[in-house]
This record gives sequence, C-alpha cells and structure tokens, in this order.
Amino acid sequence: MTNILPVLDRASAGIPASLERLFELVRIKSISTDPAFKADCRKAAEWLVTELRSLGFDATVRDTPGHPMVVAHHDGARADAPHVLFYGHYDVQPVDPLNLWDHDPFEPAVRDAEGGRRIITGRGTSDDKGQLLTFVEACRAYKETAGTLPCRVTILFEGEEESGSPSLKPFLEANAAELKADFALVCDTSMWDADTPAISAGLRGLVGEEIVIKAADRDLHSGYFGGAAANPIHILSDILAGLHDETGRVTLDGFYEGVEETPTQIKAAWEKLGSSAESLLGEVGLSIPSGEKGRSVLELTWARPTAEVNGITGGYTGEGFKTVIAAEASAKVSFRLVGKQDPAKIRDAFRAYVRSKVPADCSVSFHAHGGSPAIQLPYDSALLEKAKSALSDEWPKPAVVIGMGGSIPIVGDFQKMLGMESLLVGFALSDDRIHSPNEKYELRSFEKGIRSWVRILSALAAR
Amino acid sequence: MTNILPVLDRASAGIPASLERLFELVRIKSISTDPAFKADCRKAAEWLVTELRSLGFDATVRDTPGHPMVVAHHDGARADAPHVLFYGHYDVQPVDPLNLWDHDPFEPAVRDAEGGRRIITGRGTSDDKGQLLTFVEACRAYKETAGTLPCRVTILFEGEEESGSPSLKPFLEANAAELKADFALVCDTSMWDADTPAISAGLRGLVGEEIVIKAADRDLHSGYFGGAAANPIHILSDILAGLHDETGRVTLDGFYEGVEETPTQIKAAWEKLGSSAESLLGEVGLSIPSGEKGRSVLELTWARPTAEVNGITGGYTGEGFKTVIAAEASAKVSFRLVGKQDPAKIRDAFRAYVRSKVPADCSVSFHAHGGSPAIQLPYDSALLEKAKSALSDEWPKPAVVIGMGGSIPIVGDFQKMLGMESLLVGFALSDDRIHSPNEKYELRSFEKGIRSWVRILSALAAR
Repeated sequence: MTNILPVLDRASAGIPASLERLFELVRIKSISTDPAFKADCRKAAEWLVTELRSLGFDATVRDTPGHPMVVAHHDGARADAPHVLFYGHYDVQPVDPLNLWDHDPFEPAVRDAEGGRRIITGRGTSDDKGQLLTFVEACRAYKETAGTLPCRVTILFEGEEESGSPSLKPFLEANAAELKADFALVCDTSMWDADTPAISAGLRGLVGEEIVIKAADRDLHSGYFGGAAANPIHILSDILAGLHDETGRVTLDGFYEGVEETPTQIKAAWEKLGSSAESLLGEVGLSIPSGEKGRSVLELTWARPTAEVNGITGGYTGEGFKTVIAAEASAKVSFRLVGKQDPAKIRDAFRAYVRSKVPADCSVSFHAHGGSPAIQLPYDSALLEKAKSALSDEWPKPAVVIGMGGSIPIVGDFQKMLGMESLLVGFALSDDRIHSPNEKYELRSFEKGIRSWVRILSALAAR
Repeated sequence: MTNILPVLDRASAGIPASLERLFELVRIKSISTDPAFKADCRKAAEWLVTELRSLGFDATVRDTPGHPMVVAHHDGARADAPHVLFYGHYDVQPVDPLNLWDHDPFEPAVRDAEGGRRIITGRGTSDDKGQLLTFVEACRAYKETAGTLPCRVTILFEGEEESGSPSLKPFLEANAAELKADFALVCDTSMWDADTPAISAGLRGLVGEEIVIKAADRDLHSGYFGGAAANPIHILSDILAGLHDETGRVTLDGFYEGVEETPTQIKAAWEKLGSSAESLLGEVGLSIPSGEKGRSVLELTWARPTAEVNGITGGYTGEGFKTVIAAEASAKVSFRLVGKQDPAKIRDAFRAYVRSKVPADCSVSFHAHGGSPAIQLPYDSALLEKAKSALSDEWPKPAVVIGMGGSIPIVGDFQKMLGMESLLVGFALSDDRIHSPNEKYELRSFEKGIRSWVRILSALAAR
C-alpha cells in the first residue's frame, strides 16, 4: 500500500480551497424538479466536468432527455487494481419555503454552531454536493501528491436524483459497457452518529398499493340505511386491522417467504450501538416499538419487512359532523421488503387478501404504486471489510455496518443492469435537514469525508 | 262521530283553491339558513297567520332571536274532546344548485309525471309547506261545512327546522303552558309507499363522536421508522374494526342495555310489507344486509342500534403516493340508538373502549357531536289505533306502523318538555327529492292528505 500520510496531509491542507470549490458548486441553483432551473443544472454538470478534467479525468457532459449526466474516466496508477464507479448527484431539492431559511440557501458559508461545531450552510451542502465532492477532493489530494489515482476510477454524476431519475435506467442501459466496473461507491448516506462512520449494507424494498372500496352507488343517510347498508369504511378498517396479527407479524399468505434472520453477530453489533427504543423513537415523541414483538428497533427498521398504511380517507372529513354512509373509502398501503421477498408475489397476496374481505355486493379497485425488491449487500465481503477498516482508522469510533429502512434505487439498478455491487458510505448526519430549510453539512464531515475516501481508495487498491 | 262525508266532499271540491294557497306559500322564499331571506321567512309566517285567522284561529306571529314562530289556537266544537297540537315548519332548504332544477323552484305548478301521476313541483312542496297545509286545509273543510273544528286545536309552525331549530327549545320552555296539549300531531314524514299510509312509531336516537389518535409528534418517513413507530391509522383501524363482532353486533360494554326486541306482531307486520333486502338496498346498488345477522333490513334500520363510521382521514390522501407514517388520524363515528339506550352511557363506553386500544405512548382526543335518546311511541295506544283506522279508510291499502332510522328532535322535545306524545303522520314519498333539486309533492298526497286529516280529527274527537 502506498504511504497515504502525505495524501491525507494534502487533503487537510487543501480544505480552504476545497471549500471554495464546494461554495462555487452550491451557488449553482441546480433544482432539477423545476424547469426554471434547467440551465443551472447544465451549468452544474459543466462545472463538474471542468473540475474533473483538471484532475486528469476524461470527463464529458452527456445529454439525456432530461438533465445531463457527467461521466468521467481516470485510468489510475495500476491496471491490476480494482476499477471503481463512483456515483453522486449534482441536483438539489427546491428551497421553499424560503422564509424559513436563516441564510440564503445559495450563498453557502462556514458558520459556528452549538457545541463548538462548524457547519457549512446551504442547499445541497449535504445532499449531495458536499458528499460527492468528498470523493472528488480525495482524488485531487492523490493527484497533487502522487500525480495519479491509486486505481481506475469512473465517475457518474446524475442531475435528476431529486426528481425521480427518469433518465437513469435508459442511460445505464445505453452505456452499460462504459459504466461497468468491479463495484460502485455511492456517497449519499449518513454516519451512525457524529463519531461513528457507517456502511449501509441493507436497503429495504417497497411495494405500494392504493385500494378503493366501493359500496352503495351514492352517499347514504346513516339514519335511513345505517345498520343495513354496507359501510366501506368498516370494510376498509377490517382489512387494514387484519393485516397484522397480535404479535405484529404481517398476515398475508407467504409474506415471510425469502425473509431471513439477521446473522447473530450483526444483531449483536447493532445491540452494541446502544440504540434503544427510547433514543430512536424518543426523538419523535414515542417510546414503545410497534410492529413485530421481541425485536429491537434497529432490527425492525433495518432488517424486517413491514406493512404500513400511509393514508386513508372516506366519508365526511370536514368540520362538524355528517351522518353519512360513504359510497367509497380508500387507503394507500405500502410494504417494505427485505431479503428475497418478491414484490409481485407480495402485491398478489395483498390483493387476494383484500378481495377475500370485500362483500359480494361491494367492489374493490387496486392501483399499483411502484415495486422494488430489497437489496442486501453481503455483510462479510472483502470490499466491506477493507472499507470498514479504512473508515475506522479515520474516525474516533470504529465503523459499523447498518441497515437502511429506505430505498436507494440506483443500488438495485447497478446490481441488476450492470451486475455490480455497491458500497454505501456517506458522511451526512441525521440532523443535516436535507430536503428542508437550513440544510447544512458538518465541516468535519467534509474534511474527514475527503480523508476517508483517501483511505478507502488506498485500501481498495492494495494488493 | 259527526258525519264526515260532507267535510271530505268539501275538502276534495276545494282542491283547486287549496292548491292556489299552496302556490302562494311556496312562492315565498323562506330559506331559513340564508340571512338574505330573513324577510321572506317573516312573510311566510305572516301569510300563515292571515290564513289561520280566516279559519277562526287566534293566530299570532311570535318573535324569537331567529325566525318567528306561528302560534294559533282554536277552541273547536267540544270541550270534552282531546286538545291536539299540530306542528309543521314553514322554512325550506336552499335551492342550489339552481341549474339542476327543471323549473323555477319558487314558481310551483301541477305537472304531469310518469305513470299518469300529477305532481306539484317546487321547493317546500313536500318539505314541509305542502304537508303542513294538508292539516290547515282539513281545518278549512271543517270550518266551511260544520262552522268549527271537531276538537280543540293549537298550531305551532316553526321557521328554523332546516337550520337546526336554535329557537325551538327556549320557545317551548317559555310557552309550555300555552303549547301543552293532550298530544301532538306532526306532519313531516313519509308514506310507506304510494298506496300505503304510515305512522312512524320509533325514531332512533343519535350519539356522535369524533376521535383523533396522535402518535409521533410529526409525520415520519416510513422507510426510516416503518415497523417500529406507532402508526395512528393502524390504531384507528383496529379500533373501528373492533366495534362490531362477527355477528354484526356492537361490542361496546353495555351497548344493548335498554334495547328491547320488537314485538312479534310488529315484526310480522313489517315482514308483510314485503321489503326485502333486494328492494330497499337494491335502490342504492347493494343487495346484502350488513349489520346484525338474522334480522330483516326493516328491523335493522328501524329497531336496532348501530355503530357507523361516517368519516375517516389520516396520512397522505392526495394523488400518487407518499411513504409517510402520519402523526395523527381521525374518524367520525355515530351510534343510532333505540329503546332506552342512554346516550351518555354509550358515549362513555365508546371512549373507554377507544382508550383501552390506544398504546401508552400515543394519545386520543374526543369531540362530542350531539346526543339524543331514541323515541319509541307506543305501538298499541288508542291514539295510534284511531289514526291507523282513519288512514286505512282513506287509502287503498291499510295503514302500517313503521320505524324511522333518522331523528326528528321535536318529538323528543314535546315528550320531555311538554310531557306530550306525538303522532307522526305524513304523506311524502321517498322519491319527493326533499333537500334536492326538483322537489315535488304528489297531488294525490295533497288531496288525500287533507282528507286523511279530516278523518283523523274526526276519529280523535269521537267520544
């Protein structure tokens, strides 16, 4: 392994200049969802291409039907080292409501915060401009010390992550050969806490279903019809209440097919994280884990499948009271999947269950809202072990391998379309207020994030 | 008993003039809920006073904080006959949406309808101007033949029935001595069908409750918290699903206290009405009775208590999908009461049940929306028997004693505040479209209604 101390020193010494570059990028209002900022999105892509070229990358702006991609290649020092694809996104969320921001979201600055912390304020500082630049600036530190990168690196920056990534799959498909690497590095996730770096190894999948129960052909007066006419809200309540048994397990036929128990050592590691129900739930005013009994909050949110009702409506919901029996009632229900649960099977099982509960004189219609399987990255790969060790060298506490309750679709796309596993490492903190006013990124995350990538690249390139 | 044939003949001969008077009253736009029609409401009251005075009533317009009452007294022919109070209301519902009316709602006319029927079109023709005039015109037939009424009659016309009757209770209280009679006649109900007159003997009571379940202190992302954080929609669904057992009975503690079985002969009479689930439910696109198993649709809607969810809302209910776990969810629930069920006890039992289902880290708040006990008029009183016989003499089919799923609060007020039972007789049909565009009243209902009151008054006055 190269001696990385000079590279780390160079990274730290370069922070003031790195910050200037981050500020430049944050000032570009690349809000992908708003057509008014179309030119800004392109400008951000062009800015990145210029930067990457200055580091010796063969970088280009690549047009799509939406906002452009940035693709860049660097051969690195050695042909026998792994080839990595780094993914990030240069687009940001809208900034409304603007009046809730303490500072101009597009005028970034380093500011003092509570507890002696220094924070970088501005839209995209954490999600994802600050994060993606940790990798670019790590490359710069290598370039400025060793003159090259320790391994072959391809970079893919997307400009539509905050608006559903409509161009991503077609782009991956059309450019599969060019983008395929040994594995992907994705920097769009969080630390466990401010001192503990984290690698996300599991992402739950998702099945969304909307159901509409129809009973009478009009709203009825509950005086005239109450007690005799089918009430679609009752039917819906029965359906939803029956989705879980008394132990909190989901009752659908075959729901747990493909769900595996989390390895004991992983569970033990999670227990060491010391996250009790009180700490995680306490942040949002709760204290008692719901869902499956006898499992920790981390296991429930990282490694267990769920059924959740995300919305329900029916009948009169305005002020006051109306004694109506509604003609219809509807609910939006989603399932988080783990392991090898099959989204199509889960959807079918749900629909069969619902149909079995709807009386013959009523009807139900279904509307599918997305379906994607869970992604489980290996808990024990060499890739993961190297990254864990590199991160543990940089931060006060050893790196932990965590699950993630949510989904990062790109990871599934890389797996499925390019046959490539991902390593999810990020330096955001849970209080970064991404997608909200007053987004920030810790200055420490930025600096130690850059240094972390220096260490990880070195570890991955090591023979 | 007086020979009533001349009175009946007089009533029939007077129909053209009676219609002219109904048209005059319908033309007055007495929409009580809209302040723009305040003067019209008074005008309707004054019009009625003028008419009643012409019949020998001591009639006055009586101011209230809202729209005025009309009170009128007539001593009648004999002091030993019963003293009856007749109640009706001169106010009407708004007419929006006006474009759905085939004719001007305030330009009444007799028109031909399907099946050779003749209908009187216009707002209030059925609810309640046409109905109340059946009684007034019956008095006129008596006055014009016998010169007086067969018994002592007090009349109370209200102008706020369609806007919640805010002045009614205070007025009854302040004028109890003047208004107290042996019993009340209320003409604001329907026939069983076009050939079968009906007396309504049971009115269900009502308890309304709104519940709001609160869980986390903010909306949560179902990816991060799903499976561990309490979902208020799940809690609410469990609560609502648990309100009924598998046989359709309401599960609240003590819910059936005070509920008595309908007498066998009444049930048998209802069965004879030939209303199957198909006919009543079929009108609204249903066919299978919900609610308590083993009971007819008529029994379920007339004589059995219910729990119905009238509205529910929680989480994301817009277009598309949001994977949110809501901070709160709410429902509006109403109970229809029968027999001697106590509204306060039912409310308490419901609240205790709900509280028992809410986890310790969540909360529930309750909002009461009205509570009134059921009213059960005796099925076998002399009053009822006389009215039944009188109605059966007038119409093609014998009169039936029916229940009513809804509530007519005045009946409870008469019972409680004036110690006076009511006889509910009306000639509306279920297709009269009251409260809707194209309200109508059958010409046959108007004529035979007048003749019915001639017969009923005669029967009641009979020694």
